[in-house]
Amino acid sequence: MNRAAARMTTDAAATQLLTAIYRDVRSRSVALAAPLSAEDCTVQSMPDASPVKWHLAHTTWFFETFILERWARAYQAFHPGFRVLFNSYYNAVGDKHPRPERGMLTRPSLDEIMAYRRHVDAAIERLLAQPDESGNEMTALLELGLNHEEQHQELILTDVKHLLSRNPLGPTYAAGDRRQSRSTVEHAWISFPGGLHEIGARTGTFHFDNEGPAHQALLQPFELASHPVTCGQYRTFMDDGGYRRPELWLSLGWDTVRSLGWASPSYWQPAAGDWLEFTLQGVRPVDANAPVCHLSYFEADAYARWAGARLPTEFEWEIASARTPPDGNFLESGALHPQAAHRPSSGLAQMFGEVWEWTQSNYSPYPGYRPAPGAVGEYNGKFMCNQYVLRGGSCATPKRHIRATYRNFFPPEARWQFTGVRLARDAG
Amino acid sequence: MNRAAARMTTDAAATQLLTAIYRDVRSRSVALAAPLSAEDCTVQSMPDASPVKWHLAHTTWFFETFILERWARAYQAFHPGFRVLFNSYYNAVGDKHPRPERGMLTRPSLDEIMAYRRHVDAAIERLLAQPDESGNEMTALLELGLNHEEQHQELILTDVKHLLSRNPLGPTYAAGDRRQSRSTVEHAWISFPGGLHEIGARTGTFHFDNEGPAHQALLQPFELASHPVTCGQYRTFMDDGGYRRPELWLSLGWDTVRSLGWASPSYWQPAAGDWLEFTLQGVRPVDANAPVCHLSYFEADAYARWAGARLPTEFEWEIASARTPPDGNFLESGALHPQAAHRPSSGLAQMFGEVWEWTQSNYSPYPGYRPAPGAVGEYNGKFMCNQYVLRGGSCATPKRHIRATYRNFFPPEARWQFTGVRLARDAG
Amino acid sequence: MNRAAARMTTDAAATQLLTAIYRDVRSRSVALAAPLSAEDCTVQSMPDASPVKWHLAHTTWFFETFILERWARAYQAFHPGFRVLFNSYYNAVGDKHPRPERGMLTRPSLDEIMAYRRHVDAAIERLLAQPDESGNEMTALLELGLNHEEQHQELILTDVKHLLSRNPLGPTYAAGDRRQSRSTVEHAWISFPGGLHEIGARTGTFHFDNEGPAHQALLQPFELASHPVTCGQYRTFMDDGGYRRPELWLSLGWDTVRSLGWASPSYWQPAAGDWLEFTLQGVRPVDANAPVCHLSYFEADAYARWAGARLPTEFEWEIASARTPPDGNFLESGALHPQAAHRPSSGLAQMFGEVWEWTQSNYSPYPGYRPAPGAVGEYNGKFMCNQYVLRGGSCATPKRHIRATYRNFFPPEARWQFTGVRLARDAG
Amino acid sequence: MNRAAARMTTDAAATQLLTAIYRDVRSRSVALAAPLSAEDCTVQSMPDASPVKWHLAHTTWFFETFILERWARAYQAFHPGFRVLFNSYYNAVGDKHPRPERGMLTRPSLDEIMAYRRHVDAAIERLLAQPDESGNEMTALLELGLNHEEQHQELILTDVKHLLSRNPLGPTYAAGDRRQSRSTVEHAWISFPGGLHEIGARTGTFHFDNEGPAHQALLQPFELASHPVTCGQYRTFMDDGGYRRPELWLSLGWDTVRSLGWASPSYWQPAAGDWLEFTLQGVRPVDANAPVCHLSYFEADAYARWAGARLPTEFEWEIASARTPPDGNFLESGALHPQAAHRPSSGLAQMFGEVWEWTQSNYSPYPGYRPAPGAVGEYNGKFMCNQYVLRGGSCATPKRHIRATYRNFFPPEARWQFTGVRLARDAG
Repeated sequence: MNRAAARMTTDAAATQLLTAIYRDVRSRSVALAAPLSAEDCTVQSMPDASPVKWHLAHTTWFFETFILERWARAYQAFHPGFRVLFNSYYNAVGDKHPRPERGMLTRPSLDEIMAYRRHVDAAIERLLAQPDESGNEMTALLELGLNHEEQHQELILTDVKHLLSRNPLGPTYAAGDRRQSRSTVEHAWISFPGGLHEIGARTGTFHFDNEGPAHQALLQPFELASHPVTCGQYRTFMDDGGYRRPELWLSLGWDTVRSLGWASPSYWQPAAGDWLEFTLQGVRPVDANAPVCHLSYFEADAYARWAGARLPTEFEWEIASARTPPDGNFLESGALHPQAAHRPSSGLAQMFGEVWEWTQSNYSPYPGYRPAPGAVGEYNGKFMCNQYVLRGGSCATPKRHIRATYRNFFPPEARWQFTGVRLARDAG
Repeated sequence: MNRAAARMTTDAAATQLLTAIYRDVRSRSVALAAPLSAEDCTVQSMPDASPVKWHLAHTTWFFETFILERWARAYQAFHPGFRVLFNSYYNAVGDKHPRPERGMLTRPSLDEIMAYRRHVDAAIERLLAQPDESGNEMTALLELGLNHEEQHQELILTDVKHLLSRNPLGPTYAAGDRRQSRSTVEHAWISFPGGLHEIGARTGTFHFDNEGPAHQALLQPFELASHPVTCGQYRTFMDDGGYRRPELWLSLGWDTVRSLGWASPSYWQPAAGDWLEFTLQGVRPVDANAPVCHLSYFEADAYARWAGARLPTEFEWEIASARTPPDGNFLESGALHPQAAHRPSSGLAQMFGEVWEWTQSNYSPYPGYRPAPGAVGEYNGKFMCNQYVLRGGSCATPKRHIRATYRNFFPPEARWQFTGVRLARDAG
Repeated sequence: MNRAAARMTTDAAATQLLTAIYRDVRSRSVALAAPLSAEDCTVQSMPDASPVKWHLAHTTWFFETFILERWARAYQAFHPGFRVLFNSYYNAVGDKHPRPERGMLTRPSLDEIMAYRRHVDAAIERLLAQPDESGNEMTALLELGLNHEEQHQELILTDVKHLLSRNPLGPTYAAGDRRQSRSTVEHAWISFPGGLHEIGARTGTFHFDNEGPAHQALLQPFELASHPVTCGQYRTFMDDGGYRRPELWLSLGWDTVRSLGWASPSYWQPAAGDWLEFTLQGVRPVDANAPVCHLSYFEADAYARWAGARLPTEFEWEIASARTPPDGNFLESGALHPQAAHRPSSGLAQMFGEVWEWTQSNYSPYPGYRPAPGAVGEYNGKFMCNQYVLRGGSCATPKRHIRATYRNFFPPEARWQFTGVRLARDAG
Repeated sequence: MNRAAARMTTDAAATQLLTAIYRDVRSRSVALAAPLSAEDCTVQSMPDASPVKWHLAHTTWFFETFILERWARAYQAFHPGFRVLFNSYYNAVGDKHPRPERGMLTRPSLDEIMAYRRHVDAAIERLLAQPDESGNEMTALLELGLNHEEQHQELILTDVKHLLSRNPLGPTYAAGDRRQSRSTVEHAWISFPGGLHEIGARTGTFHFDNEGPAHQALLQPFELASHPVTCGQYRTFMDDGGYRRPELWLSLGWDTVRSLGWASPSYWQPAAGDWLEFTLQGVRPVDANAPVCHLSYFEADAYARWAGARLPTEFEWEIASARTPPDGNFLESGALHPQAAHRPSSGLAQMFGEVWEWTQSNYSPYPGYRPAPGAVGEYNGKFMCNQYVLRGGSCATPKRHIRATYRNFFPPEARWQFTGVRLARDAG
């Protein structure tokens, strides 16, 4: 086999693989909506959340706007109004429908959105079947689009959880099995040395622009808790007057506690001396051994102060987690869902895929950070204000999406995401 | 035929008639929802409006709560949670779901609500097939329930119009025929004498409690315009700076104009020097000869001041309309939809079924007014504050529902109803 | 003495009298501010209230703008900026400083405002010393200006009371004597016949435009309570759960009770099982025999419903009070306009000068009402929306200002005025 | 002279010096209020600002609460209510008067506050005349109190500027000389090497707890602009559509621009094609060569993006400024506390005492940061959320108060402080 033929073969294999990943990611969004009615998919329960239908359309709009409009010859837009309707925040693309109005869109129907998805999917697959003449730019945007869709897959779950929680009839998203009760584990402090460490993602594998450039950071010696804080531990904080003692809180956090009347994590409800929590599987008793979830930054920070500890910085978190060698490589293994990219070792447990863990790090650019050119440059940088970095990924995060350098971010008062806390402290 | 037999026959006929009316009214609600998807029926576009699904359920709840719970032996509630969920504002019935949260109820589904309607309808029909042992109390509540449902039929249309207007794709409720353009008519002043007149509904026919008791009112001689103000006339007001001249407005009205940026009736949009309006049949050019619609009390009042006239009082309106003898009696004629209970005469035209006409009368109790005892006493009296009376009924009002003594009421800033204006002035 | 001389003498006497009244009214405003510091006079405690300094300036502005600018030859405005700064709401006069910003005006100082008053007073007195060539128009506006100032004298007291109540140190406006405790009186129902009655002020004596034109009104027989509701009676309502029972309230009232957390009249505070109230003389125990004060329309209405009664209409109130022959003549006490005044008789007591009594009457124009031409026509008419009429005058109302036809008006949620309630009911 | 005598002498000298500093700082607050009337000192123009009277009282409260209550034997509080009234935010001290209510306090009067100051000053001086038996803790708190008062001295100026700017009469704080127009200077980029640098204040001299502990930080090579951005440069940004181009702004910044309608720095007003600015000396033309001032973080950041640069980190700023050897000694110039100061060198100019310069650094704790124990520990740490660090000090900052390690902080939307911007960029 000569070189050209070899390359063709490789290209064909790569195209097949990319097409398979595309299909897999796209089909998982549809699967997430499957337990929901068209009505469930239409309503917006608060300005921060979006209707499921909107997520399904907006992720499709991403492929249509950034890929098909540019590279698909003779592509016919599915609907001329969608360009504005499903633009989230890209000013470079033009007008956009106001975010708090997303729930007004009873039309297009869910069926039409599904047809929109099929229309775009077919065009993308046709495009993938052709040689990529963009010098990999198209493939890079496709990968970005898939990661973007995975982010919205998590939002579908968090947003529908919020919506269903507002219904006094106590509906469930999916009957599912009752989540297994966790067993008690011993929490320990794990020590890490200080010094200069490399932080951030290197070029070569996919990552969002905010994960780079890779650079050196200086750390002091520190310790990290082996496990995230559990519901049982958090109960002790609550029982110790945690929500009534201003000295434990940031000033802004205390204002929030009082004005919103917080007295427990979100979705918890008192019941005869105990606590229940609303979940996607319905209302259940709080599991004392499970990681506490749906905490704001303010609560995570107050808990840490009460516990005589602090939140980790995002650098501490990343360095610690990097000591946990991955047990698989997505491409080598060929697996689409490598289950345990993140085997706990060195004593750290539940770092990935349990709860997003608040860090004390403000979401700000790494030294030398440059947003990508063009409209997709609006993806990350412009949100670098008044938000805090979370690390690790939650039970709602697609597995393919989790990595050590990943920087999630939310405002300090946000609670509707699957957010928890792992303690840190300065090394003795 | 002896007396008892005669009476039995009469009863049977009355039952048949009542059952027929019940079916007719109930089926019209379902027909109004027919052009809408489940998604359309679920969303709440503002706190003042309710989802169509909620209207369909709440009207059913009324029969279930006030009739079936009381008189239907062994009646099984369709769903135990609905008693709270679909209670609008009856404190005597117990808890209620907060009004601004009605749009959160993606469940129960529209299908379930339709099943709820059928469940209650069947129980009501079974009840109607039995002798009424309540001494007519049940029949009176049934008639109240039907009139209540007719009110919500109008709200279904006004609320869905508001919802669809928020969608930038310009959806339609029903394709329908394009409404015929009106021809120009000559407007005239019609004179009415002053003196003592009887106002309000007498006992004997159905009316809401707020229409009584009948009583004498003293009027000065006055004149009423033969027709409601047209869009063309209102355009002249707009072109004369109507929305920019504070001297034409009530103080509260001027504040509203400025804070909400009003510059035309609701649903109007400027288009190349002309005006379009959003309607249930889509966006169309404003018809200069049609009655102007979707005005607030503030706009109606400002227009009247600009025109050197004033709004009529509700008594003037009622007396003037009463000079228009009805051409049919519902029970005598046996007709379910007497089309022209309200033949214009004496020069007055378009008094009924065009637009609700704002009067200058504050919505307040008639002398001697007493709310009905029990929960249904919450129907009218408690809203008698900061609202103004409208008379006549609109194109969206069920025909059976229109009558000369009918008092509709809305706050002065409300515009999403089909509301217009007819001028009055003191007699020379 | 010939005619001309006689007339000259009469004119001179009238001028002297008018000048005396002018001085008297103007000096009373200054006297009301005397117990206050410049700081007290500067702050605005809520948008509804104005700083005392602003009242002192605005009342002066009225004379400067409507009289001196027009009739005083070569009048030099005190300060060119004041025309806008102290315009309250007269659009015809031009721009105005925004109402909620009145408290930002630390300059001009109180001293400067006092100098402004003296400047205008001197010019007015010079003008009064000249023959009125305006055909009485100037005198009429002067009288309007004095009545306007008297209204603001009451507002000075209500607004400073609100301001001082916000100070946790419990300051007093004036030490004064402790108000005498009232003795218990027997409350009775007083009957009045129905029929046609004349309502409103006739031309010939001073009145605001909203008091006319005089016209016939038709009343049903009714009864009025001999006394306003006392604090003790109101306590019984409170103790009977008055603020916790929605069935007693207008819907809008109940919303207000809950959103503002009302549980007593304004300025009351619980103290060891009893109630204290904040007054202009400091905090004191509530006097069970004194008329209850600082009630909203909502509370007055709820109390009446609880008591099995209702609020009077403003016509009932006026007719009843007119049956009370005057017990004094203001001329004797140096006042100008002898008004049929205030001697309780026929059993009615405390009709005038105790508390403003809420009526159930919406503030709306009398038949044939026309606002005065020009800027002063903005005085009353444009406020005729969502307000209710109060009658009688309070302890803070200047005595010269009280009369049977007087229509005060406030929105139904207002509580910072001296407002109370007298019950009415339909006659047997 | 033996040792004890020597020490006594030293102590006496130290006491004299401390007393002199105390008098100096305290008297400067009084001097700042001197051009203001009692009315000017009473009003609160927005929740973020406080009345001057409140600043004068609260700084006094600090000495009374944290020093006199603890160490002054038999100290009699000036007024028992002041402990709550003038507590700003110290939860450990107990209740506090709500911040937005500070402008309600027309009493105590300015005169009483001045008496309060004298009362506390006398007690402090008596205390200083005695040996400090607290092991320097008292002296440390006194120094903290003086620095605290200096912070409020700057706030007096920023808050009164905001207040006076709301007055349409255009008042001035102080006539003063017209500030001299600046001459044009050449702006240049100054380079600094990367590497490990020491950041933060060492123990031994006074600093706030947030300036420590001193620690190593790793920097990349960078460049800093020689001068802050001038008004003229900022005008170019404005003329280039700076306020109308979303791509230049953080997402939150763009929301703020649109919702608040920003189109220029605060206090600027357009005038016939040019710009004026409101200053403490009145309204004047904008000086193109002066540093632009009253920018929010959002505007500083947008300007930097437009200019192809970025904001410096606070570490870059501190390192750069530390390379600037002091050009003078405050003692020589009559100041009490010689600070390593501020001589521009190595090309950097106007680093201190012109405008507070926004950095891109989120206000967060240094590694190893611990708040002081007790109530004064509430001084800094609890505000470490959603604020950005500013460096350098402004024209309103007391000279004694300026130092290289000083960390000022404000939320990104704040504009009423004297805040500007100096550009940075990565080294070639």
